[in-house]
Amino acid sequence: MLVIGELINGMFKAVGKAIADRDKKVIQKVAKDQVAAGAGMLDVNTGPYEKNPKDAMKWLVETIQEVTDVPLALDSTKADVIEEGLKLVKKKAMVNSANADEEKLNTIVPLAKKYNAFLIGLTMDKKGIPRDKNERTEHAVTIITKCQEIGFNLSDLYLDPIVLPVNVAQAQGIEVLEAIKEFKLLCDPAPKTVVGLSNISQGTKTRPLINRTYLVMAITNGLTAAIMDPLDKELMNAAITSELILNKNIYCDSFLDSYRKR
Amino acid sequence: MLVIGELINGMFKAVGKAIADRDKKVIQKVAKDQVAAGAGMLDVNTGPYEKNPKDAMKWLVETIQEVTDVPLALDSTKADVIEEGLKLVKKKAMVNSANADEEKLNTIVPLAKKYNAFLIGLTMDKKGIPRDKNERTEHAVTIITKCQEIGFNLSDLYLDPIVLPVNVAQAQGIEVLEAIKEFKLLCDPAPKTVVGLSNISQGTKTRPLINRTYLVMAITNGLTAAIMDPLDKELMNAAITSELILNKNIYCDSFLDSYRKR
Repeated sequence: MLVIGELINGMFKAVGKAIADRDKKVIQKVAKDQVAAGAGMLDVNTGPYEKNPKDAMKWLVETIQEVTDVPLALDSTKADVIEEGLKLVKKKAMVNSANADEEKLNTIVPLAKKYNAFLIGLTMDKKGIPRDKNERTEHAVTIITKCQEIGFNLSDLYLDPIVLPVNVAQAQGIEVLEAIKEFKLLCDPAPKTVVGLSNISQGTKTRPLINRTYLVMAITNGLTAAIMDPLDKELMNAAITSELILNKNIYCDSFLDSYRKR
Repeated sequence: MLVIGELINGMFKAVGKAIADRDKKVIQKVAKDQVAAGAGMLDVNTGPYEKNPKDAMKWLVETIQEVTDVPLALDSTKADVIEEGLKLVKKKAMVNSANADEEKLNTIVPLAKKYNAFLIGLTMDKKGIPRDKNERTEHAVTIITKCQEIGFNLSDLYLDPIVLPVNVAQAQGIEVLEAIKEFKLLCDPAPKTVVGLSNISQGTKTRPLINRTYLVMAITNGLTAAIMDPLDKELMNAAITSELILNKNIYCDSFLDSYRKR
Protein backbone atom coordinates (compact mmCIF):
# COMPACT_ATOMS: atom_id res chain seq x y z
CA MET A 1 0.00 0.00 0.00
CA LEU A 2 1.16 3.49 -0.81
CA VAL A 3 1.52 5.61 2.33
CA ILE A 4 1.02 9.29 1.56
CA GLY A 5 2.33 11.34 4.49
CA GLU A 6 -0.27 13.88 5.61
CA LEU A 7 1.81 16.10 7.86
CA ILE A 8 2.92 18.86 5.49
CA ASN A 9 -0.34 20.71 5.77
CA GLY A 10 -0.75 24.31 6.93
CA MET A 11 -3.73 23.13 8.97
CA PHE A 12 -1.25 21.77 11.52
CA LYS A 13 -0.16 24.61 13.74
CA ALA A 14 3.64 24.21 13.65
CA VAL A 15 3.63 23.54 9.91
CA GLY A 16 1.27 26.46 9.28
CA LYS A 17 3.64 28.74 11.15
CA ALA A 18 6.66 27.38 9.26
CA ILE A 19 4.89 28.03 5.95
CA ALA A 20 3.96 31.58 7.02
CA ASP A 21 7.56 32.22 8.11
CA ARG A 22 9.01 30.34 5.11
CA ASP A 23 11.06 28.36 7.64
CA LYS A 24 12.69 25.58 5.62
CA LYS A 25 14.11 23.68 8.56
CA VAL A 26 10.74 22.71 10.07
CA ILE A 27 9.27 21.60 6.73
CA GLN A 28 12.37 19.64 5.76
CA LYS A 29 12.39 17.82 9.08
CA VAL A 30 8.71 16.84 8.71
CA ALA A 31 9.46 15.68 5.16
CA LYS A 32 12.48 13.57 6.16
CA ASP A 33 10.79 12.10 9.22
CA GLN A 34 7.80 10.94 7.19
CA VAL A 35 9.98 9.35 4.51
CA ALA A 36 12.12 7.62 7.15
CA ALA A 37 8.94 6.23 8.72
CA GLY A 38 7.81 4.66 5.45
CA ALA A 39 5.90 7.29 3.47
CA GLY A 40 6.19 6.64 -0.27
CA MET A 41 4.70 10.01 -1.15
CA LEU A 42 4.18 13.31 0.68
CA ASP A 43 1.01 15.35 0.62
CA VAL A 44 1.66 19.08 0.28
CA ASN A 45 -1.06 21.48 1.37
CA THR A 46 -0.43 25.16 2.09
CA GLY A 47 -3.34 25.23 4.53
CA PRO A 48 -6.40 27.44 4.70
CA TYR A 49 -4.77 30.62 6.03
CA GLU A 50 -1.99 31.20 3.53
CA LYS A 51 -2.42 34.55 1.75
CA ASN A 52 -0.31 33.64 -1.24
CA PRO A 53 -0.93 29.94 -1.78
CA LYS A 54 0.73 29.81 -5.22
CA ASP A 55 3.95 31.16 -3.82
CA ALA A 56 3.65 28.91 -0.76
CA MET A 57 3.16 25.82 -2.92
CA LYS A 58 6.20 26.72 -5.03
CA TRP A 59 8.28 27.29 -1.92
CA LEU A 60 7.08 24.05 -0.31
CA VAL A 61 7.83 21.91 -3.35
CA GLU A 62 11.32 23.40 -3.70
CA THR A 63 11.97 23.12 0.03
CA ILE A 64 10.87 19.48 0.23
CA GLN A 65 12.74 18.44 -2.91
CA GLU A 66 15.97 19.75 -1.43
CA VAL A 67 15.89 16.91 1.13
CA THR A 68 13.97 14.03 -0.43
CA ASP A 69 13.08 12.67 -3.84
CA VAL A 70 9.83 10.89 -2.95
CA PRO A 71 6.94 12.02 -5.16
CA LEU A 72 4.54 14.70 -3.96
CA ALA A 73 0.75 14.89 -3.78
CA LEU A 74 -0.17 18.50 -4.53
CA ASP A 75 -3.18 19.19 -2.39
CA SER A 76 -5.32 22.24 -3.05
CA THR A 77 -8.85 23.17 -4.08
CA LYS A 78 -7.32 25.60 -6.59
CA ALA A 79 -6.05 24.39 -9.96
CA ASP A 80 -3.52 27.21 -10.29
CA VAL A 81 -1.97 26.37 -6.90
CA ILE A 82 -1.62 22.73 -7.92
CA GLU A 83 -0.14 23.74 -11.28
CA GLU A 84 2.49 25.86 -9.52
CA GLY A 85 3.70 22.64 -7.89
CA LEU A 86 3.36 20.54 -11.03
CA LYS A 87 5.76 22.87 -12.85
CA LEU A 88 8.48 22.09 -10.34
CA VAL A 89 8.16 18.42 -9.38
CA LYS A 90 11.05 16.13 -10.22
CA LYS A 91 9.04 12.90 -9.84
CA LYS A 92 5.62 11.95 -11.16
CA ALA A 93 3.29 13.83 -8.81
CA MET A 94 -0.28 13.32 -7.67
CA VAL A 95 -3.01 15.90 -8.18
CA ASN A 96 -5.15 16.11 -5.04
CA SER A 97 -7.92 16.41 -6.16
CA ALA A 98 -10.76 16.35 -8.66
CA ASN A 99 -14.30 15.29 -7.82
CA ALA A 100 -17.33 14.23 -9.85
CA ASP A 101 -18.43 17.79 -10.52
CA GLU A 102 -18.44 18.48 -14.28
CA GLU A 103 -16.65 21.82 -14.03
CA LYS A 104 -14.00 20.44 -11.69
CA LEU A 105 -13.41 17.42 -13.92
CA ASN A 106 -13.03 19.64 -16.98
CA THR A 107 -10.33 21.66 -15.24
CA ILE A 108 -8.44 19.13 -13.17
CA VAL A 109 -8.34 16.02 -15.37
CA PRO A 110 -6.68 17.89 -18.28
CA LEU A 111 -4.25 19.46 -15.80
CA ALA A 112 -3.23 16.04 -14.45
CA LYS A 113 -2.95 14.75 -18.02
CA LYS A 114 -0.83 17.69 -19.16
CA TYR A 115 1.74 17.08 -16.42
CA ASN A 116 1.49 13.25 -16.56
CA ALA A 117 0.45 13.14 -12.91
CA PHE A 118 -1.56 10.71 -10.82
CA LEU A 119 -5.01 12.02 -9.92
CA ILE A 120 -7.25 11.63 -6.90
CA GLY A 121 -10.95 11.64 -7.77
CA LEU A 122 -13.19 12.32 -4.79
CA THR A 123 -16.49 10.50 -5.26
CA MET A 124 -18.64 13.52 -4.43
CA ASP A 125 -19.89 16.54 -6.33
CA LYS A 126 -21.03 20.05 -5.50
CA LYS A 127 -24.30 18.72 -4.10
CA GLY A 128 -22.15 17.39 -1.28
CA ILE A 129 -21.12 14.24 0.49
CA PRO A 130 -22.34 10.87 -0.84
CA ARG A 131 -24.93 9.14 1.32
CA ASP A 132 -24.08 5.52 0.63
CA LYS A 133 -22.03 3.08 -1.41
CA ASN A 134 -24.26 3.51 -4.45
CA GLU A 135 -23.86 7.28 -4.62
CA ARG A 136 -20.11 6.81 -4.26
CA THR A 137 -20.12 4.33 -7.12
CA GLU A 138 -22.20 6.63 -9.33
CA HIS A 139 -19.67 9.43 -8.79
CA ALA A 140 -16.82 6.99 -9.47
CA VAL A 141 -18.40 6.10 -12.81
CA THR A 142 -18.73 9.80 -13.69
CA ILE A 143 -15.05 10.34 -12.93
CA ILE A 144 -13.92 7.27 -14.85
CA THR A 145 -16.05 8.21 -17.86
CA LYS A 146 -14.59 11.72 -17.94
CA CYS A 147 -11.04 10.37 -17.67
CA GLN A 148 -11.72 8.08 -20.62
CA GLU A 149 -13.18 10.97 -22.66
CA ILE A 150 -10.17 13.15 -21.98
CA GLY A 151 -7.73 10.31 -22.51
CA PHE A 152 -6.42 10.30 -18.97
CA ASN A 153 -4.81 6.97 -18.15
CA LEU A 154 -7.12 5.13 -15.72
CA SER A 155 -4.20 3.36 -14.10
CA ASP A 156 -3.10 6.79 -12.83
CA LEU A 157 -6.48 7.42 -11.16
CA TYR A 158 -7.07 6.96 -7.42
CA LEU A 159 -10.74 6.97 -6.42
CA ASP A 160 -11.44 8.38 -2.95
CA PRO A 161 -14.71 7.13 -1.39
CA ILE A 162 -14.76 10.00 1.19
CA VAL A 163 -14.19 8.81 4.73
CA LEU A 164 -16.39 10.53 7.34
CA PRO A 165 -16.02 10.73 11.12
CA VAL A 166 -17.41 7.67 12.87
CA ASN A 167 -18.79 9.78 15.71
CA VAL A 168 -21.14 11.76 13.47
CA ALA A 169 -21.70 9.49 10.46
CA GLN A 170 -21.33 6.04 11.93
CA ALA A 171 -23.22 4.21 9.19
CA GLN A 172 -20.84 5.62 6.55
CA GLY A 173 -17.83 3.64 7.74
CA ILE A 174 -19.12 0.43 6.25
CA GLU A 175 -20.43 2.19 3.13
CA VAL A 176 -16.88 3.37 2.42
CA LEU A 177 -15.47 -0.11 3.01
CA GLU A 178 -18.04 -1.56 0.62
CA ALA A 179 -17.30 1.17 -1.92
CA ILE A 180 -13.61 0.24 -1.91
CA LYS A 181 -14.61 -3.29 -2.94
CA GLU A 182 -17.21 -2.09 -5.42
CA PHE A 183 -14.87 0.35 -7.19
CA LYS A 184 -12.60 -2.56 -8.07
CA LEU A 185 -15.32 -3.97 -10.30
CA LEU A 186 -15.73 -0.79 -12.36
CA CYS A 187 -12.96 -1.39 -14.84
CA ASP A 188 -10.15 -3.78 -15.63
CA PRO A 189 -7.47 -3.42 -14.39
CA ALA A 190 -9.27 -2.38 -11.19
CA PRO A 191 -9.11 1.32 -10.32
CA LYS A 192 -6.82 2.28 -7.46
CA THR A 193 -8.31 3.66 -4.26
CA VAL A 194 -7.18 6.16 -1.64
CA VAL A 195 -8.64 7.42 1.62
CA GLY A 196 -8.02 10.40 3.85
CA LEU A 197 -7.70 8.07 6.82
CA SER A 198 -7.69 10.47 9.76
CA ASN A 199 -11.20 11.67 8.91
CA ILE A 200 -12.62 8.49 10.42
CA SER A 201 -11.52 9.47 13.92
CA GLN A 202 -12.05 13.24 13.81
CA GLY A 203 -13.52 14.47 17.06
CA THR A 204 -13.18 11.13 18.84
CA LYS A 205 -11.16 10.47 21.98
CA THR A 206 -9.36 7.37 20.68
CA ARG A 207 -8.02 8.59 17.37
CA PRO A 208 -4.99 6.28 16.88
CA LEU A 209 -6.99 3.12 17.71
CA ILE A 210 -9.84 4.05 15.37
CA ASN A 211 -7.40 5.07 12.61
CA ARG A 212 -5.41 1.86 12.68
CA THR A 213 -8.48 -0.37 12.95
CA TYR A 214 -10.09 1.35 9.99
CA LEU A 215 -6.90 1.17 7.95
CA VAL A 216 -6.68 -2.60 8.42
CA MET A 217 -10.34 -2.95 7.42
CA ALA A 218 -9.80 -0.85 4.29
CA ILE A 219 -6.65 -2.77 3.33
CA THR A 220 -8.60 -6.02 3.75
CA ASN A 221 -11.05 -4.71 1.16
CA GLY A 222 -8.26 -3.84 -1.27
CA LEU A 223 -7.30 -0.23 -0.51
CA THR A 224 -4.32 0.92 -2.59
CA ALA A 225 -3.21 4.10 -0.83
CA ALA A 226 -3.90 6.17 2.28
CA ILE A 227 -3.18 9.76 3.20
CA MET A 228 -2.18 9.25 6.82
CA ASP A 229 0.32 9.96 9.57
CA PRO A 230 3.39 7.74 8.99
CA LEU A 231 4.86 8.92 12.31
CA ASP A 232 2.14 6.99 14.14
CA LYS A 233 4.23 3.86 14.63
CA GLU A 234 1.36 1.58 15.61
CA LEU A 235 -0.54 2.71 12.52
CA MET A 236 2.41 1.85 10.30
CA ASN A 237 2.80 -1.49 12.11
CA ALA A 238 -0.85 -2.26 11.39
CA ALA A 239 -0.39 -1.41 7.69
CA ILE A 240 2.80 -3.46 7.37
CA THR A 241 1.26 -6.44 9.18
CA SER A 242 -1.88 -6.32 7.03
CA GLU A 243 0.22 -6.49 3.90
CA LEU A 244 2.26 -9.33 5.38
CA ILE A 245 -0.90 -11.32 6.00
CA LEU A 246 -2.08 -10.57 2.47
CA ASN A 247 1.19 -12.18 1.39
CA LYS A 248 2.57 -9.04 -0.25
CA ASN A 249 5.87 -9.18 1.64
CA ILE A 250 7.71 -12.33 2.66
CA TYR A 251 7.58 -13.20 6.35
CA CYS A 252 10.68 -12.92 8.46
CA ASP A 253 10.84 -12.45 12.24
CA SER A 254 11.93 -8.85 11.75
CA PHE A 255 9.36 -8.04 9.05
CA LEU A 256 8.56 -4.64 10.59
CA ASP A 257 12.17 -3.48 10.49
CA SER A 258 12.73 -5.01 7.08
CA TYR A 259 9.82 -3.07 5.65
CA ARG A 260 11.05 0.17 7.15
CA LYS A 261 14.59 -0.32 5.83
CA ARG A 262 13.44 -0.74 2.25
CA MET B 1 -18.65 -10.88 17.65
CA LEU B 2 -18.61 -13.70 20.16
CA VAL B 3 -15.33 -13.79 22.10
CA ILE B 4 -14.54 -17.31 23.28
CA GLY B 5 -11.85 -17.13 25.96
CA GLU B 6 -9.02 -19.53 25.16
CA LEU B 7 -7.14 -19.54 28.46
CA ILE B 8 -8.67 -22.53 30.26
CA ASN B 9 -6.52 -25.02 28.41
CA GLY B 10 -4.15 -27.53 30.01
CA MET B 11 -1.65 -26.62 27.30
CA PHE B 12 -0.89 -23.43 29.27
CA LYS B 13 1.55 -24.32 32.03
CA ALA B 14 -0.15 -22.74 35.06
CA VAL B 15 -3.57 -23.98 33.99
CA GLY B 16 -2.19 -27.47 33.24
CA LYS B 17 -0.75 -27.62 36.74
CA ALA B 18 -3.98 -26.38 38.28
CA ILE B 19 -5.92 -29.07 36.43
CA ALA B 20 -3.43 -31.77 37.53
CA ASP B 21 -3.67 -30.54 41.14
CA ARG B 22 -7.44 -29.94 40.88
CA ASP B 23 -6.74 -26.45 42.19
CA LYS B 24 -10.06 -24.62 41.84
CA LYS B 25 -8.76 -21.18 42.75
CA VAL B 26 -6.48 -20.83 39.71
CA ILE B 27 -9.13 -22.02 37.26
CA GLN B 28 -11.84 -19.83 38.77
CA LYS B 29 -9.62 -16.77 38.57
CA VAL B 30 -8.84 -17.41 34.89
CA ALA B 31 -12.57 -17.90 34.26
CA LYS B 32 -13.62 -14.71 36.04
CA ASP B 33 -10.83 -12.61 34.52
CA GLN B 34 -11.82 -13.65 30.99
CA VAL B 35 -15.49 -12.88 31.56
CA ALA B 36 -14.65 -9.51 33.10
CA ALA B 37 -12.53 -8.71 30.02
CA GLY B 38 -15.43 -9.38 27.65
CA ALA B 39 -15.50 -13.12 26.88
CA GLY B 40 -19.02 -14.26 26.08
CA MET B 41 -18.06 -17.94 26.24
CA LEU B 42 -15.16 -19.90 27.73
CA ASP B 43 -13.29 -22.67 25.97
CA VAL B 44 -12.56 -25.63 28.25
CA ASN B 45 -9.75 -27.99 27.28
CA THR B 46 -8.12 -30.41 29.72
CA GLY B 47 -4.89 -30.28 27.75
CA PRO B 48 -2.80 -33.02 26.21
CA TYR B 49 -1.19 -34.43 29.38
CA GLU B 50 -4.22 -35.15 31.56
CA LYS B 51 -4.41 -38.86 32.42
CA ASN B 52 -8.11 -38.84 33.19
CA PRO B 53 -9.61 -36.29 30.79
CA LYS B 54 -13.25 -37.28 31.47
CA ASP B 55 -12.85 -36.61 35.14
CA ALA B 56 -10.86 -33.44 34.45
CA MET B 57 -13.59 -32.13 32.11
CA LYS B 58 -16.26 -32.85 34.72
CA TRP B 59 -14.21 -31.09 37.39
CA LEU B 60 -13.47 -28.11 35.13
CA VAL B 61 -17.11 -27.56 34.15
CA GLU B 62 -18.24 -27.77 37.78
CA THR B 63 -15.41 -25.53 38.96
CA ILE B 64 -16.05 -22.86 36.31
CA GLN B 65 -19.83 -22.88 36.79
CA GLU B 66 -19.36 -22.14 40.48
CA VAL B 67 -18.11 -18.65 39.57
CA THR B 68 -19.67 -17.71 36.22
CA ASP B 69 -22.71 -18.53 34.14
CA VAL B 70 -21.28 -17.76 30.68
CA PRO B 71 -21.67 -20.72 28.31
CA LEU B 72 -18.79 -23.13 27.77
CA ALA B 73 -17.11 -24.50 24.65
CA LEU B 74 -16.17 -28.08 25.44
CA ASP B 75 -12.93 -28.64 23.61
CA SER B 76 -11.60 -32.15 23.10
CA THR B 77 -10.79 -34.60 20.34
CA LYS B 78 -12.71 -37.26 22.30
CA ALA B 79 -16.51 -37.45 22.14
CA ASP B 80 -16.80 -39.03 25.59
CA VAL B 81 -14.79 -36.22 27.18
CA ILE B 82 -17.05 -33.63 25.55
CA GLU B 83 -20.15 -35.55 26.63
CA GLU B 84 -18.96 -35.53 30.23
CA GLY B 85 -19.11 -31.75 30.06
CA LEU B 86 -22.40 -31.65 28.14
CA LYS B 87 -24.10 -33.59 30.94
CA LEU B 88 -23.28 -30.83 33.40
CA VAL B 89 -23.58 -27.51 31.58
CA LYS B 90 -26.21 -25.07 32.78
CA LYS B 91 -26.22 -22.94 29.60
CA LYS B 92 -26.33 -23.98 25.95
CA ALA B 93 -22.78 -25.18 25.33
CA MET B 94 -20.58 -25.42 22.25
CA VAL B 95 -19.07 -28.69 21.04
CA ASN B 96 -15.48 -28.08 19.92
CA SER B 97 -15.26 -29.81 17.50
CA ALA B 98 -16.30 -31.92 14.54
CA ASN B 99 -14.57 -31.87 11.17
CA ALA B 100 -15.48 -33.01 7.67
CA ASP B 101 -14.39 -36.57 8.30
CA GLU B 102 -17.38 -38.95 7.86
CA GLU B 103 -16.73 -40.92 11.04
CA LYS B 104 -16.24 -37.79 13.12
CA LEU B 105 -19.39 -36.21 11.75
CA ASN B 106 -21.41 -39.35 12.50
CA THR B 107 -20.28 -39.22 16.13
CA ILE B 108 -20.11 -35.52 16.96
CA VAL B 109 -23.09 -34.04 15.12
CA PRO B 110 -25.59 -36.37 16.84
CA LEU B 111 -23.88 -35.64 20.16
CA ALA B 112 -24.30 -31.88 19.69
CA LYS B 113 -27.89 -32.43 18.58
CA LYS B 114 -28.71 -34.66 21.58
CA TYR B 115 -27.58 -31.97 24.02
CA ASN B 116 -28.90 -29.02 21.96
CA ALA B 117 -25.41 -27.54 21.75
CA PHE B 118 -23.68 -25.25 19.29
CA LEU B 119 -21.11 -27.05 17.15
CA ILE B 120 -17.78 -26.07 15.63
CA GLY B 121 -17.08 -27.76 12.29
CA LEU B 122 -13.41 -27.64 11.30
CA THR B 123 -13.15 -27.50 7.50
CA MET B 124 -10.58 -30.30 7.28
CA ASP B 125 -10.69 -34.07 7.28
CA LYS B 126 -8.33 -36.91 8.14
CA LYS B 127 -6.31 -36.28 4.98
CA GLY B 128 -5.21 -33.11 6.73
CA ILE B 129 -5.16 -29.38 6.47
CA PRO B 130 -6.97 -27.71 3.55
CA ARG B 131 -4.72 -26.13 0.93
CA ASP B 132 -6.87 -23.24 -0.19
CA LYS B 133 -10.24 -21.53 -0.02
CA ASN B 134 -11.83 -24.12 -2.32
CA GLU B 135 -10.85 -27.11 -0.20
CA ARG B 136 -12.16 -25.29 2.86
CA THR B 137 -15.45 -24.64 1.10
CA GLU B 138 -15.75 -28.28 -0.02
CA HIS B 139 -15.32 -29.40 3.58
CA ALA B 140 -17.83 -26.80 4.72
CA VAL B 141 -20.38 -28.20 2.27
CA THR B 142 -19.73 -31.74 3.58
CA ILE B 143 -20.34 -30.56 7.15
CA ILE B 144 -23.47 -28.60 6.26
CA THR B 145 -24.89 -31.53 4.30
CA LYS B 146 -24.33 -33.91 7.19
CA CYS B 147 -25.94 -31.49 9.64
CA GLN B 148 -28.98 -31.28 7.38
CA GLU B 149 -29.15 -35.09 7.11
CA ILE B 150 -29.02 -35.51 10.86
CA GLY B 151 -31.40 -32.64 11.47
CA PHE B 152 -28.88 -30.48 13.31
CA ASN B 153 -29.95 -26.83 13.27
CA LEU B 154 -27.61 -24.97 10.88
CA SER B 155 -27.96 -21.76 12.86
CA ASP B 156 -26.12 -23.56 15.70
CA LEU B 157 -23.17 -24.42 13.44
CA TYR B 158 -19.89 -22.46 13.45
CA LEU B 159 -17.60 -23.24 10.52
CA ASP B 160 -13.88 -22.96 11.27
CA PRO B 161 -11.69 -22.31 8.20
CA ILE B 162 -8.50 -23.42 10.03
CA VAL B 163 -6.08 -20.59 10.64
CA LEU B 164 -2.41 -21.48 10.10
CA PRO B 165 0.76 -19.72 11.27
CA VAL B 166 1.74 -16.86 8.96
CA ASN B 167 5.43 -17.69 9.37
CA VAL B 168 5.11 -21.18 7.84
CA ALA B 169 1.98 -20.95 5.68
CA GLN B 170 1.90 -17.34 4.64
CA ALA B 171 -0.34 -17.81 1.61
CA GLN B 172 -3.02 -19.42 3.78
CA GLY B 173 -3.85 -16.20 5.68
CA ILE B 174 -5.71 -14.76 2.74
CA GLU B 175 -7.28 -18.12 1.83
CA VAL B 176 -8.87 -18.20 5.29
CA LEU B 177 -10.08 -14.61 4.95
CA GLU B 178 -11.62 -15.46 1.58
CA ALA B 179 -13.17 -18.64 3.02
CA ILE B 180 -14.91 -16.61 5.74
CA LYS B 181 -16.60 -14.59 2.99
CA GLU B 182 -17.31 -17.65 0.84
CA PHE B 183 -18.91 -19.65 3.66
CA LYS B 184 -21.54 -16.94 4.04
CA LEU B 185 -22.86 -17.80 0.59
CA LEU B 186 -23.39 -21.50 1.35
CA CYS B 187 -26.80 -21.23 2.94
CA ASP B 188 -29.39 -18.73 4.06
CA PRO B 189 -29.23 -17.49 6.77
CA ALA B 190 -25.44 -17.44 6.36
CA PRO B 191 -23.51 -19.97 8.43
CA LYS B 192 -21.62 -18.60 11.41
CA THR B 193 -17.82 -18.71 11.44
CA VAL B 194 -15.18 -19.10 14.12
CA VAL B 195 -11.38 -19.06 14.12
CA GLY B 196 -8.69 -20.20 16.52
CA LEU B 197 -7.08 -16.77 16.28
CA SER B 198 -3.74 -17.30 18.01
CA ASN B 199 -2.69 -19.88 15.41
CA ILE B 200 -1.94 -17.05 12.98
CA SER B 201 0.98 -15.83 15.08
CA GLN B 202 2.36 -19.11 16.39
CA GLY B 203 6.16 -19.07 16.37
CA THR B 204 6.40 -15.38 15.43
CA LYS B 205 8.07 -12.67 17.47
CA THR B 206 5.21 -10.15 17.26
CA ARG B 207 2.27 -12.25 18.34
CA PRO B 208 -0.11 -9.59 19.73
CA LEU B 209 0.30 -7.32 16.69
CA ILE B 210 -0.29 -10.16 14.23
CA ASN B 211 -3.25 -11.48 16.25
CA ARG B 212 -5.06 -8.16 16.43
CA THR B 213 -4.39 -7.27 12.80
CA TYR B 214 -5.72 -10.63 11.65
CA LEU B 215 -8.77 -10.36 13.89
CA VAL B 216 -9.74 -7.02 12.36
CA MET B 217 -9.28 -8.47 8.87
CA ALA B 218 -11.47 -11.47 9.71
CA ILE B 219 -14.18 -9.29 11.30
CA THR B 220 -14.16 -7.14 8.16
CA ASN B 221 -14.98 -10.27 6.17
CA GLY B 222 -17.84 -11.19 8.49
CA LEU B 223 -16.32 -13.41 11.19
CA THR B 224 -18.89 -14.31 13.87
CA ALA B 225 -16.72 -15.68 16.70
CA ALA B 226 -13.09 -16.11 17.72
CA ILE B 227 -11.35 -18.33 20.22
CA MET B 228 -8.82 -15.85 21.55
CA ASP B 229 -7.21 -14.26 24.58
CA PRO B 230 -9.63 -11.70 26.04
CA LEU B 231 -6.97 -10.56 28.52
CA ASP B 232 -5.00 -9.05 25.62
CA LYS B 233 -6.46 -5.57 26.02
CA GLU B 234 -5.28 -4.24 22.67
CA LEU B 235 -6.80 -7.28 20.97
CA MET B 236 -10.14 -6.63 22.64
CA ASN B 237 -9.88 -2.92 21.75
CA ALA B 238 -9.35 -3.89 18.11
CA ALA B 239 -12.40 -6.18 18.17
CA ILE B 240 -14.61 -3.59 19.87
CA THR B 241 -13.47 -0.84 17.47
CA SER B 242 -14.05 -3.03 14.42
CA GLU B 243 -17.63 -3.68 15.50
CA LEU B 244 -18.11 0.02 16.20
CA ILE B 245 -17.03 0.86 12.67
CA LEU B 246 -19.34 -1.85 11.30
CA ASN B 247 -22.09 0.06 13.12
CA LYS B 248 -22.96 -2.78 15.48
CA ASN B 249 -22.66 -0.65 18.62
CA ILE B 250 -23.56 3.01 18.89
CA TYR B 251 -20.65 5.43 19.10
CA CYS B 252 -19.96 7.29 22.32
CA ASP B 253 -16.64 8.75 23.43
CA SER B 254 -16.22 5.96 25.98
CA PHE B 255 -17.28 3.16 23.63
CA LEU B 256 -14.49 0.86 24.86
CA ASP B 257 -15.58 1.09 28.49
CA SER B 258 -19.25 0.90 27.57
CA TYR B 259 -18.68 -2.35 25.73
CA ARG B 260 -16.76 -3.84 28.61
CA LYS B 261 -19.40 -2.86 31.16
CA ARG B 262 -22.19 -4.62 29.27
